Amino acid sequence: MDSFHVKILVYLKDGVLDTQGKAVAKSLIDSGYSDLVNVRVGKYIQLWVNAASREDALSEAEKMCDDLLVNQLIEQYEIEIES
Amino acid sequence: MDSFHVKILVYLKDGVLDTQGKAVAKSLIDSGYSDLVNVRVGKYIQLWVNAASREDALSEAEKMCDDLLVNQLIEQYEIEIES
Repeated sequence: MDSFHVKILVYLKDGVLDTQGKAVAKSLIDSGYSDLVNVRVGKYIQLWVNAASREDALSEAEKMCDDLLVNQLIEQYEIEIES
Repeated sequence: MDSFHVKILVYLKDGVLDTQGKAVAKSLIDSGYSDLVNVRVGKYIQLWVNAASREDALSEAEKMCDDLLVNQLIEQYEIEIES
């Protein structure tokens, strides 16, 4: 078993209203960042998993996303793996 | 002015207790993912900014992180820019 560092980006699907992003954008624009067009705020989840191979680590991470980490009604995700 | 898509990863510094990560790890392990070693949960902030150059967009994003987006006492960040 090797140890793998899995980096997962979870963010709202296009078209889903991001109230946190809107609030952050307003704060930044009010602070003078007038060239800001839009902000979206998601989650960055890092996992460390033991697995026999990179493929196993990826498949395990995808299952965790589908089971628990991501609400696929409104969110989508990207996975990147380092060994 | 061009439009740039800035991707920012914000996460707790090593050594700072990540209670959200611990809770997620416990849920995953309780769900049967016994090969999971550790979880850390951070933020994934996407910005769209208008700037004269990639360098200007980066410098603007760094200022936003230092001013508002990142608590540098406990968090660190990485920035990636796409045009």
